[in-house]
Amino acid sequence: MRPQTPEQATRDAIEHLSTLIHGIKVAMMTTVDADGSLHSRPMWTQDHDFDGDLWFFTRVRSHKVEELEEDHHVNISFADPARERYVSVSGRCQLEKDPRRMRDMWSPALEAWFPQGLDDPELALLRVSVQRAEYWDTPTLGASGPDSSASNLTFS
Amino acid sequence: MRPQTPEQATRDAIEHLSTLIHGIKVAMMTTVDADGSLHSRPMWTQDHDFDGDLWFFTRVRSHKVEELEEDHHVNISFADPARERYVSVSGRCQLEKDPRRMRDMWSPALEAWFPQGLDDPELALLRVSVQRAEYWDTPTLGASGPDSSASNLTFS
Ligand SMILES: Cc1cc2nc3c(=O)[nH]c(=O)nc-3n(C[C@H](O)[C@H](O)[C@H](O)COP(=O)(O)O)c2cc1C
Repeated sequence: MRPQTPEQATRDAIEHLSTLIHGIKVAMMTTVDADGSLHSRPMWTQDHDFDGDLWFFTRVRSHKVEELEEDHHVNISFADPARERYVSVSGRCQLEKDPRRMRDMWSPALEAWFPQGLDDPELALLRVSVQRAEYWDTPTLGASGPDSSASNLTFS
Repeated sequence: MRPQTPEQATRDAIEHLSTLIHGIKVAMMTTVDADGSLHSRPMWTQDHDFDGDLWFFTRVRSHKVEELEEDHHVNISFADPARERYVSVSGRCQLEKDPRRMRDMWSPALEAWFPQGLDDPELALLRVSVQRAEYWDTPTLGASGPDSSASNLTFS
């Protein structure tokens, strides 16, 4: 093993996660409700160059935004059953209303959920800063016990 | 709308959820860690008649069991991108070591994760009692805005 600086380790983790989630269009975002229960919902992913943050479009007035105001922890899970690839991303999430970034990230596929497009005053972004990721893919799956089969990526 | 007793509503919800998740072999189970961060991992689903509880095999000594001892809330998400079907199940989870049930639920596919099979002293079940489910499937998709597109099932 070659010695690695923490910065290089983070860069490698970012690159690896970027490859793992590439092509998975919809992820499940889990949040914590006021009573402690956990909810998830499908969210359209952004295929822009991943640099340590994941981005999603959202409506400002929505249940998930309320939940995130109380508890900013999220899990984003990516499941690709056809390739037997599963990725769990743990992070913290915040709402951002950055018109320029929204323009950059907008894609026509989003019109199904946001018919008014970029003009929608309710439109905003959720930024997930990734703390940790775990993944299971074909070579790992089934290679060993369920708790030893995950590979870890740590972001600092 | 025909009048419905609460018992009938629960029976209907159970039947509906059972249909929705049928055929989805792997679900992502999200748990809360001691520091509040959320982790998920793929879990092999049991296709036995769903009666309001979801069951998964686990090892007793595992990180998720530790997490569940502190906070028993879980989210189970079922994603079937090919059929554009997404289901979020919120529930509470507990460990059960019931040899008879384990024998009933065992399937050879589990040997990939539990090579010792039913003889493994570390083998146990996780029972998730379902509180609430939300789902998105093709007919709901794109029909309206993102906040109206989920359908709800409540279990009492
Ligand atoms: C395939 C798919 C992709 C979706 N993508 C998004 C999205 O990118 N942003 C969003 O806010 N809602 C999206 N939705 C709708 C959400 O799943 C959810 O219904 C909505 O955000 C409201 O969730 P909440 O009440 O928990 O806030 C999508 C739904 C589906 C089925």
